[in-house]
Amino acid sequence: MAVNYKTPTAASLLPVLGVMLGCAEAHIRKPNRKDMLLITLEPGSRAAGVFTQNRFCAAPVTLCRHYLEYTMETRALIINTGCANAGTGDEGMLNARATTKAVADALAIKVQQVLPFSTGVILEHLPMDRLLAGIPLCLANLREDGWFDAAHAIMTTDTVPKAISKQIQIQGKTVTITGISKGAGMIQPNMATMLGFIATDAAVGPDVLQDMVRNAADASFNSITIDGDTSTNDSFVLVATGKAGHPQINGEGTAEYGQLQLAVTDVAIQLAQAIVRDGEGATKFITIKVEGGKTYGECMKIAKAIGHSPLVKTAFFASDPNLGRILAAIGYAGVNDLDPALLKLYLGDVLVAENGGRAVSYEETDGVRVMKEAEILVRVELNRGRERATLWTCDFSYDYVKINADYRS
Amino acid sequence: MAVNYKTPTAASLLPVLGVMLGCAEAHIRKPNRKDMLLITLEPGSRAAGVFTQNRFCAAPVTLCRHYLEYTMETRALIINTGCANAGTGDEGMLNARATTKAVADALAIKVQQVLPFSTGVILEHLPMDRLLAGIPLCLANLREDGWFDAAHAIMTTDTVPKAISKQIQIQGKTVTITGISKGAGMIQPNMATMLGFIATDAAVGPDVLQDMVRNAADASFNSITIDGDTSTNDSFVLVATGKAGHPQINGEGTAEYGQLQLAVTDVAIQLAQAIVRDGEGATKFITIKVEGGKTYGECMKIAKAIGHSPLVKTAFFASDPNLGRILAAIGYAGVNDLDPALLKLYLGDVLVAENGGRAVSYEETDGVRVMKEAEILVRVELNRGRERATLWTCDFSYDYVKINADYRS
Repeated sequence: MAVNYKTPTAASLLPVLGVMLGCAEAHIRKPNRKDMLLITLEPGSRAAGVFTQNRFCAAPVTLCRHYLEYTMETRALIINTGCANAGTGDEGMLNARATTKAVADALAIKVQQVLPFSTGVILEHLPMDRLLAGIPLCLANLREDGWFDAAHAIMTTDTVPKAISKQIQIQGKTVTITGISKGAGMIQPNMATMLGFIATDAAVGPDVLQDMVRNAADASFNSITIDGDTSTNDSFVLVATGKAGHPQINGEGTAEYGQLQLAVTDVAIQLAQAIVRDGEGATKFITIKVEGGKTYGECMKIAKAIGHSPLVKTAFFASDPNLGRILAAIGYAGVNDLDPALLKLYLGDVLVAENGGRAVSYEETDGVRVMKEAEILVRVELNRGRERATLWTCDFSYDYVKINADYRS
Repeated sequence: MAVNYKTPTAASLLPVLGVMLGCAEAHIRKPNRKDMLLITLEPGSRAAGVFTQNRFCAAPVTLCRHYLEYTMETRALIINTGCANAGTGDEGMLNARATTKAVADALAIKVQQVLPFSTGVILEHLPMDRLLAGIPLCLANLREDGWFDAAHAIMTTDTVPKAISKQIQIQGKTVTITGISKGAGMIQPNMATMLGFIATDAAVGPDVLQDMVRNAADASFNSITIDGDTSTNDSFVLVATGKAGHPQINGEGTAEYGQLQLAVTDVAIQLAQAIVRDGEGATKFITIKVEGGKTYGECMKIAKAIGHSPLVKTAFFASDPNLGRILAAIGYAGVNDLDPALLKLYLGDVLVAENGGRAVSYEETDGVRVMKEAEILVRVELNRGRERATLWTCDFSYDYVKINADYRS
């Protein structure tokens, strides 16, 4: 189903020192599926996150932001699927808080040390009796090698679990980074949300952890789009337990920071790309690179105009090298002083447009050859500066309409 | 095919004093169809227009803007379908100019008095031999009652002709307003473009004609969306021949200006709505009203977020009252200080959400009843100001993907 995606095996996912994971079948919405996940972190662990900019953000998102302001130490993450606890008003906030309180009591920690996450149907209240009953079940299942089950527990309409591990050496110590994610549309039908969790046993100072998660998010989850819709619950959290044994990383300028940032970003990119590969109805994985711009912002604007255009996305589905649609999207991206005569457009290795029109050397058969691949590179060279941006997206198929039109019918 | 659309009859379209129309089958792209239209205007006529903001704008658009700056009197409009003359570089500009030169020579007027328009395939050059041969054919067919044929001549993938007439009295004189338009997607597959032409025999001063076309465009063609794509060729032109016999309208504040603006805007709205009703794959006509905002801009931002969301549009197709998708779109529209707890969302006459969640009184059967209609009103009351905006759009069906994926296959 997912485009060119290698499903992870249990053995490929490495435990992270100081992290335990426990799942449960709590029957939040459907029976016989893991739908709760508890992640516990040893004392001294820190978390930092980036969250949806949607004004209709879910209660757990609001609570996460709030708790992260008030505590230096995070000890647990509690996640449920089946119900997003979004568009639930005051009762939603009380339910999210009650969930974290129950976890805190069970672990004898403070409520602010527990971060809550929900994904699933919007505008419905959490079934608190079943959710609270699920917490001791998760606790009973806690294990260090629980990542594979965890990746399954957070799936909603995903067709494949999304998880990856990586190890690097920092000052002679092995540092492990393992992450999981979920999501198959920026918003699923009602099954809202992209979630991403990455844990590392690296020791990272509190000031730099937030920078690290922000940098990783910009290069990964903020650089993908499926349908342009932004969920109410999107959350991406990085936790660091500090158990790997190397001296704490405190400055952004250090070599160790650079090493760890690179590895965390790489894991985040692979988790984000997995979401695109598993995008609703996706048959193609498309990389859009916009280069030679004055700013990163204008490059990303153009990449998103291409990546969001339904006309471009249906052309990819049809393997149709429809240059006019791509050029038109570049033209309306909102870069007001853009000179179309300066830019070059490539499909894969084929120059298709320059000087404001079709390249003289371009043959349609070359365009068709590129468009028939399952992975397609669209590259725009603006020739007006030195900045660049990359966006990953998928095509727009009959199945996208089918999945989204039939979901509640 | 088109949603709730009453196809105009030849008899319903009224001649405008000073305006003649002539069509031809010039075989620009396909045989046996009218694909050229010449509109001639008597001396003393004026034109004003609004054009696409796309940076990849077509050669005729650039030329129209240029000519309108250099002349007070416009005497002819020459329109072809089958080829958009967009993404055609310098040769495209020469071809557009040569077209206007040929018309000018034939009518013994100045080249700047002829406005050119093209719609059709992007990235291909105009077949100048056939185009130039078509001009005398158009001239030979000029007639005052040519509006019905004209509406057909500018169609590309439109399934119905779009035209309407209206008459009002200004200072005891009958003023006629007749308009035609085309377009079935903001961009057709490659058959780019929305075109709108309205002619009136009212006498309007040059300064106010531009205001009048801008006001009419904002309330009509700028308030519709099918797929969020903006064409390279969009043009909307208002011409006034001044033959109705009333004193010239010079000031925006006068009662006569108000009367004429109202009538012109009404014609423009009906022409614009006809494009939505005939939208690619459309099965529903949707009106989105956002009220109680601080500014028109923020109201339109929210309306467009709803109107562009593929998730919302597929839900309309499925007659699914999927409130979460609409609320999520409102939330990510980019109004950063929006308080979701203040707003109310209505489907038709049904209050569906308030206080940040589902309305207590809301029953899903009521939502389903509204969503099953062919015309649906979505109303958002922001409760933070006194401004409002209206957007018209259509749903997103299998046929949209089919039309756009199969077009060149």
